[in-house]
Amino acid sequence: SNDVKEYENYFGMTLLDRRTDKRTDSKWLSQKQRHPDTVYILFSNLSPFVTLGGGSESSHHPEVKLCRLYRQDVEQCINQTEECTLIFLGVELQFDMRLMAACHGRVRQDEEDGLVAWFALSIDSACAEKFKQKYEGCYFLHPPMPALLQLPEKEAGVIAQARSVLAWHNRYRFCPTCGSATKIEEGGYKKTCLKEDCPSLQGVHNTSYPRVDPVVIMQVIHPDGNHCLLGRQKRFPPGMFTCLAGFVEPGETIEDAVRREVEEEAGVKVSHVQYVSCQPWPMPSSLMIGCLAFAVSTEIKVDKNEIEDARWFTREQVVEVLIKGSQHSFFVPPSRAIAHQLIKHWIGMNANL
Amino acid sequence: SNDVKEYENYFGMTLLDRRTDKRTDSKWLSQKQRHPDTVYILFSNLSPFVTLGGGSESSHHPEVKLCRLYRQDVEQCINQTEECTLIFLGVELQFDMRLMAACHGRVRQDEEDGLVAWFALSIDSACAEKFKQKYEGCYFLHPPMPALLQLPEKEAGVIAQARSVLAWHNRYRFCPTCGSATKIEEGGYKKTCLKEDCPSLQGVHNTSYPRVDPVVIMQVIHPDGNHCLLGRQKRFPPGMFTCLAGFVEPGETIEDAVRREVEEEAGVKVSHVQYVSCQPWPMPSSLMIGCLAFAVSTEIKVDKNEIEDARWFTREQVVEVLIKGSQHSFFVPPSRAIAHQLIKHWIGMNANL
Ligand SMILES: Nc1ncnc2c1ncn2[C@@H]1O[C@H](COP(=O)(O)O)[C@@H](O)[C@H]1O
Ligand SMILES: Nc1ncnc2c1ncn2[C@@H]1O[C@H](COP(=O)(O)O)[C@@H](O)[C@H]1O
Repeated sequence: SNDVKEYENYFGMTLLDRRTDKRTDSKWLSQKQRHPDTVYILFSNLSPFVTLGGGSESSHHPEVKLCRLYRQDVEQCINQTEECTLIFLGVELQFDMRLMAACHGRVRQDEEDGLVAWFALSIDSACAEKFKQKYEGCYFLHPPMPALLQLPEKEAGVIAQARSVLAWHNRYRFCPTCGSATKIEEGGYKKTCLKEDCPSLQGVHNTSYPRVDPVVIMQVIHPDGNHCLLGRQKRFPPGMFTCLAGFVEPGETIEDAVRREVEEEAGVKVSHVQYVSCQPWPMPSSLMIGCLAFAVSTEIKVDKNEIEDARWFTREQVVEVLIKGSQHSFFVPPSRAIAHQLIKHWIGMNANL
Repeated sequence: SNDVKEYENYFGMTLLDRRTDKRTDSKWLSQKQRHPDTVYILFSNLSPFVTLGGGSESSHHPEVKLCRLYRQDVEQCINQTEECTLIFLGVELQFDMRLMAACHGRVRQDEEDGLVAWFALSIDSACAEKFKQKYEGCYFLHPPMPALLQLPEKEAGVIAQARSVLAWHNRYRFCPTCGSATKIEEGGYKKTCLKEDCPSLQGVHNTSYPRVDPVVIMQVIHPDGNHCLLGRQKRFPPGMFTCLAGFVEPGETIEDAVRREVEEEAGVKVSHVQYVSCQPWPMPSSLMIGCLAFAVSTEIKVDKNEIEDARWFTREQVVEVLIKGSQHSFFVPPSRAIAHQLIKHWIGMNANL
């Protein structure tokens, strides 16, 4: 459906081309770091530096926007602190004449390629304080969820990328193979152990690269086709129900992970599984893989260690909550969350039942 | 298509129920470890201990089988070495009368639940030598690929699970957050930092859990619908071509990863992407996500850093190689590899063009 297609963009498509080839071009990277057009976005404690944007009509939430800073704004901070991490995010996707010329080999003689690079800069709390004072109306967005869902769609993708990589640097400071210190390379996408004879330096190992955790999230459909299974965790706001979800395990397919998680959490057996769409979820670095799961049993046995409650909801109940926004009985996550889109997809799918 | 469905099982479905709930039940785990029916499978240096099975008619390769050992066989090894790691894999899916009785609450009085548990045991090379001498005709399968593709389908799933978790223990011995030593918990699926005030102990962090790396692998289809794009890396055997593939990056959707990788490696632009099926790939712990990718440009510009060659092949060329087994011009990976199945899926899909 069109909804799902469009929605794929949230945290997904970005306004940047990652240009992974430039990560190993340290000359280009340092030129771009000093270039006046280069955009810097700031993070403190994994929270992005934002400001209030114009109210978006289609949304209940006020929209927030990333603050775009330039070299001159961050210069002092970069020079003064050791604790700041810099991640190359990519270059702006822009199809203006200057860029077209560059692409066709007519590169300007000053070695300028016309590309506008973006970097994420993680700063310490002392620096963060200074930025908050200097830029009135700007603040560090916290807590990240559900606040991150208030960003414009395209910026959400950049945040997902930056926050995931920064969270990796935050938690993976030492070499897991030998426990030594590491150094950051390739624009922030590689960590190399500093101990000369560490086995991680022989061959290619995932210890050097950022982590992405695949998670399955599924809209479970009753054998009658007219009910779906939604559950809630203790830590959810009262009344909120959503799709079941869980981490994919080593050596497991997406489809088996769906079947295992639904049976573990709710005691319901699933046969066929159908992929719908996915969404990066930067908390800290998950890839949410959204599926429809067709149940072949109906009795619910909730595993209280994992969830608090799980129930079959009728199509009418879900339509009411989703379309009419009724908040009487229960509610579901906001429209930019993949769970919302999966639920909506199911309703669309069943529209002519 | 049926092929893809069936094939999903390779490295995917297993003969075991993971019973993740038992991982925290240390009393149950240690009872099962001592139980005479419990199955142990051995690994040395991430290579499984196997023996030659009966020749499988449908395959060109001789089939190898996992050696199933019991407590008495491994007792000495477990007691004598410190270097062995034990992973709980699950319990056999068996629907015999004894199990049915247990499920219905008529549990035997001796606290026996009738479940046959499986463990993976990683041993040091001294122990490995002893096992090779003691069990004639048994050996440690090496190199793992493509040899692992010779295992019966159901055993392949168990191997994928065990090898991924063992590879994680192998490379992630120290806490990445503080560099301290760690201890193994929860049947082998959790590592906890031993330093009391480590930040990794506050809250839940992925540093404690095994890694699964999502990879996209795609059959790229020419705009004319009758050619597909296959490439080769330098390290491949001469003449082998296969689907393009690459790691999903932080903050990226599956669909965007497909588009980025195809453009990076071959310079070809892709619009629509369609998920087909996936396969765990225990080298060391990837999840291969198989897609069809519909190209909207045709000119190939190979990135020599990533691949050696990429070409459009006609449907006739692919059918010849795949169905008729012609080895004249080029060949593709064996039938149990997801690339083979994606290519086959495309041919099936186009059968009536
Ligand atoms: N998790 C990862 N494990 C290994 N390599 C990675 C990972 N993430 C990104 N890479 C990059 O992918 C390259 C290997 O890709 P491949 O040749 O497809 O195995 C490495 O040289 C890295 O630059
Ligand atoms: N990569 C991972 N990161 C965090 N938790 C994980 C991971 N893999 C498995 N888990 C388990 O999943 C639980 C958290 O799941 P959830 O409540 O869905 O966030 C943790 O308590 C762990 O037992």
